[in-house]
Amino acid sequence: MTLQIFALTGIGPVHPGDDLTEILTTALQPLAPEGGDVLVVTHKIVSKAEGRVVAIEGDEEMFRRGLVESEAVSVVRRRGDLIIAETEHGFICANAGVDRSNAEPGTMILLPENPDRSAHQIRTRLDRSFGIDIPVIISDTFGRPWRRGLTDIAIGVAGLEAVTDLRGTSDWAGRQLEVTEIAVADELAAAADLVMGKADGIPAALIRGYQGPRGEGRGRDLVRPPEEDMFR
Amino acid sequence: MTLQIFALTGIGPVHPGDDLTEILTTALQPLAPEGGDVLVVTHKIVSKAEGRVVAIEGDEEMFRRGLVESEAVSVVRRRGDLIIAETEHGFICANAGVDRSNAEPGTMILLPENPDRSAHQIRTRLDRSFGIDIPVIISDTFGRPWRRGLTDIAIGVAGLEAVTDLRGTSDWAGRQLEVTEIAVADELAAAADLVMGKADGIPAALIRGYQGPRGEGRGRDLVRPPEEDMFR
Repeated sequence: MTLQIFALTGIGPVHPGDDLTEILTTALQPLAPEGGDVLVVTHKIVSKAEGRVVAIEGDEEMFRRGLVESEAVSVVRRRGDLIIAETEHGFICANAGVDRSNAEPGTMILLPENPDRSAHQIRTRLDRSFGIDIPVIISDTFGRPWRRGLTDIAIGVAGLEAVTDLRGTSDWAGRQLEVTEIAVADELAAAADLVMGKADGIPAALIRGYQGPRGEGRGRDLVRPPEEDMFR
Repeated sequence: MTLQIFALTGIGPVHPGDDLTEILTTALQPLAPEGGDVLVVTHKIVSKAEGRVVAIEGDEEMFRRGLVESEAVSVVRRRGDLIIAETEHGFICANAGVDRSNAEPGTMILLPENPDRSAHQIRTRLDRSFGIDIPVIISDTFGRPWRRGLTDIAIGVAGLEAVTDLRGTSDWAGRQLEVTEIAVADELAAAADLVMGKADGIPAALIRGYQGPRGEGRGRDLVRPPEEDMFR
């Protein structure tokens, strides 16, 4: 099994109201999409196209704090300016997803309202354009406890299993696997980030040759239910 | 920028005392290693070759618990049989890294004693074989709070920056990036896992075309120092 990961080049700045799928379709054309392709799109251009952009009013820092508080359904940790909060979607991340990087001056970017719906819409229209089912992942950059650095993870998914279930699978020695659930959508998002780069203005990537299970997985499948969670 | 990720096939079961780098060299030959390649090796075959394998004595479950306690320097959470513990290396993971999947019957596998040293040794000998500096990542499969499913991460690194530092970098609008540290070694490990598969017996992958910074990063760079950690 061999994967290829292509940076999607030529996508310029995206603005509220832009037809993102049309922009992505144009960027995908030179790659001639085929079966086994998975499209990963950073949430920022999705949020921008969907108008999830807020104009800063008054003092920027005060405004940012208010916005974080309003996007958060609960605060998990707070240290200085940094708030780790749970969003309405159930994601636990810095500043409840409110971000200034790659925002137009004077604005801040929120998470898409429903990243699974966003992924579904892009997938449906790409299918119409190319006649191929291309699963879509909407990604964001999250920190995590205990480990330095951030990684890209999946917040919206359409067309593939987000978590593969290996329960009942055996290893080569015939023993049941202890590790049974792999967050493949997060691994795909992380892999895509390797060709994007935060500063390079490449907001999407195409992964070719992915042989994991298709299906109707969602980004929300990756949220651990609070009752299973040992760390809340 | 385009990445390719190749599964390294033809690696059979590895046993204590085996010359792992020779095995990897043979498996790499058909891919004709070149500049920009990064080798990702799951820790299990490293642990096996290094003899970090323990024969089970007496009751398996009792023995496993004792082994976990002895591998752990501290217990972070405990629920039923599951212990989330800190290892001597500083990693926080399930069962302090003690694992039975893909172990020979009657044995359990521990983490390598020093995964950075293991990565360094493989890198040095590959350089001698191929005349090319191939960075090496030793990977393991870890869970994480709040999100379902596990992902592969880097526990040992040689030849590249484990965490890229984007401090002082600007986005396309000239604004300083808020996200400054990307755990690229973890993203590379996650990407490699996509072609390996837990049950398929493919314990290594070659990533071709990685353009991130080379350097003398270590797996330990990915351990967040306890004083910076909001979740201990």
